[in-house]
Amino acid sequence: MVDVAVVGVGMIKWGELWEKSLRDVFVEAALKAIDDAGVDRIDSMYVGCMSSGLFAGQEHLGGVMADYLGVTPIPATRIESACASGGVAFRQGFMEVASGMSEIVLVGGVEKMTDVSGGGATYALATAADQEYEVYNGVTFPGLYAMMARAHMAKYGTTRDQLAQVAVKNHDNGSKNPNAQYRMKITVDKVKNAVMIADPLTILDCSPITDGAAAVIICPVEIARKMGKQPIVRIAGSGQASDTIAVHQRKDITYLGATEVAAKKAYEMAGVGPTDIDLVEVHDCFTIAELCAIEALGLVEKGKGGPATENGETAIGGRIPVNPSGGLKSKGHPVGATGVAQIVEVTEQLRGESGPRQVKDAKRGLTQNMGGTCASTAVHILEVA
Amino acid sequence: MVDVAVVGVGMIKWGELWEKSLRDVFVEAALKAIDDAGVDRIDSMYVGCMSSGLFAGQEHLGGVMADYLGVTPIPATRIESACASGGVAFRQGFMEVASGMSEIVLVGGVEKMTDVSGGGATYALATAADQEYEVYNGVTFPGLYAMMARAHMAKYGTTRDQLAQVAVKNHDNGSKNPNAQYRMKITVDKVKNAVMIADPLTILDCSPITDGAAAVIICPVEIARKMGKQPIVRIAGSGQASDTIAVHQRKDITYLGATEVAAKKAYEMAGVGPTDIDLVEVHDCFTIAELCAIEALGLVEKGKGGPATENGETAIGGRIPVNPSGGLKSKGHPVGATGVAQIVEVTEQLRGESGPRQVKDAKRGLTQNMGGTCASTAVHILEVA
Repeated sequence: MVDVAVVGVGMIKWGELWEKSLRDVFVEAALKAIDDAGVDRIDSMYVGCMSSGLFAGQEHLGGVMADYLGVTPIPATRIESACASGGVAFRQGFMEVASGMSEIVLVGGVEKMTDVSGGGATYALATAADQEYEVYNGVTFPGLYAMMARAHMAKYGTTRDQLAQVAVKNHDNGSKNPNAQYRMKITVDKVKNAVMIADPLTILDCSPITDGAAAVIICPVEIARKMGKQPIVRIAGSGQASDTIAVHQRKDITYLGATEVAAKKAYEMAGVGPTDIDLVEVHDCFTIAELCAIEALGLVEKGKGGPATENGETAIGGRIPVNPSGGLKSKGHPVGATGVAQIVEVTEQLRGESGPRQVKDAKRGLTQNMGGTCASTAVHILEVA
Repeated sequence: MVDVAVVGVGMIKWGELWEKSLRDVFVEAALKAIDDAGVDRIDSMYVGCMSSGLFAGQEHLGGVMADYLGVTPIPATRIESACASGGVAFRQGFMEVASGMSEIVLVGGVEKMTDVSGGGATYALATAADQEYEVYNGVTFPGLYAMMARAHMAKYGTTRDQLAQVAVKNHDNGSKNPNAQYRMKITVDKVKNAVMIADPLTILDCSPITDGAAAVIICPVEIARKMGKQPIVRIAGSGQASDTIAVHQRKDITYLGATEVAAKKAYEMAGVGPTDIDLVEVHDCFTIAELCAIEALGLVEKGKGGPATENGETAIGGRIPVNPSGGLKSKGHPVGATGVAQIVEVTEQLRGESGPRQVKDAKRGLTQNMGGTCASTAVHILEVA
């Protein structure tokens, strides 16, 4: 397999981008990545997107984006894996370069979610759950994650305050990220007293509805070296896994089995373990999700996500900084873009370009991106080569 | 790059499968492919599907299908490239095995189109065209292909009868295919006198709305040899390309540029040319599409698709048999499944298992699968190793 590097990243300000179309948003991020990499060609491209059909009435995003970006006739492929679309698209790009089929590949993620009414967005997002057995019976994602939170509290003694502290930390981090959708700092009390969505989760436990895109350029490490840009950020590990689509089919609904499997593969491939990681970006679509994710990644013991968050272990400057970008909670969650934006954040951290939210001496970072309640997940490990 | 073979194929009877769900249809084909290959594990899987969100209210098909097939926690990825979703999914699976990331990979394609009303299906399909510049102005695919047909007739003198002869030939072939949706033979007069859809195309120039799935198992040629099954069907070439999403942006609307580019790459990779191909499966979503496709593939000269069809060159037993399976026209067109079913047909032909529609001494076959009006396309060359 060819050794692969991330040589360019493109991120835009996320939010309610009423004045921009789906194409505008994607192309803006893609052009930034191309500019950052300094490449004069792309051999192939990927578009991670969950549901442009339901959100924007437009499928066939490979062709649409290659056209609007002005790079036809290169191969252009759209990947869908619900909220893990971006992470899975990154893995597909990685495998294309690793196989030797292509050299310079663009991987972008995009979602334009605010152009439908509130009910339309909830309906579209719920198509990532089990339509026949979950959604048909009236549950959507806030309800599913609320059940996971209640189970985690019952099984491990996780407290309401600990859940809230995930949101507080991520808003602290996001306040230092100029591209984040919600940059205000919040408090535990504010989270607990916000509008209830699905008990125990209030609206401040939930990631928002967001328009946004992110993009990266990858190529063989050998070519990256010739480009002369330092440091070289190498893709050291890649893992992907699946799980039952419905939560109720799992033995333990607090356990993200697919994340554990994908992480194990990524760690093995990189030849490292959880203690070798300097920072992580995880999929905190709800506060409880971050706790489950860091447990499944082996960064904390099972059931210890809450206390670890409470005592500052996951803050920037803590033992293992989690979501220095602000995470989905503060940065926003344009579902198809999220996994790619995680790669952008880790790459910038490894390059030492993260300004006030820089994790000191970051040499190796991990991303965890999941679809639905983790019926799909992609884990990647990047390191300074 | 690892040399890759197709070692199992699974095809089911296509049609209006009211009694089966999206999952049932996919899993039925997948189990047939697994059984045909005789494998006892799968390392990774792909699901080609265009718009399960709009057709069935279910996205996240990687997770859904891995779960229902009982193969979690393997990586499971959904690929969307409109009507080329199947062909592009096959290419992704091919690259995964070629890269060395996985050994035994399942690639399936599926679409369940009849569960929405007629208008719903037309809306869903039209999301493969340019929403902002084509569909917004009232044109859907029959209209776009009708314009391409009129332009081809004006530029090359292609006749109405020649268009009809594509449908007649494909129904002849499909009458010999037990899995085809419409097995009746038709005549040129019947095509010309059928209900008009978009002048000059009648309903018998159009591929139908279909429920269906198809699946294949691929693995390194080295492993295929150990399995001992003969002949080994090797993936000799793979090409993918994109074009403008809107037809009106092209210099010549009769010319499928993306198909020509993808074919060139596939031919180069395989080290062969058009005259070395024994049979092809092309994307005849409308009769005119088959003529444009065989021209772009270099099987006939530009503008000569009509006469070649008229004089029998593309029939089984002709110079270059086109769509021995019956093509999209007779076999049906469950959009996400079509590209994978083309691989199934060519593999069975190379194995000599096609019964009454067998192309004699077939040693090398080509598939061409396209999305929309060819804003995306995948071309593959399979050969007896």
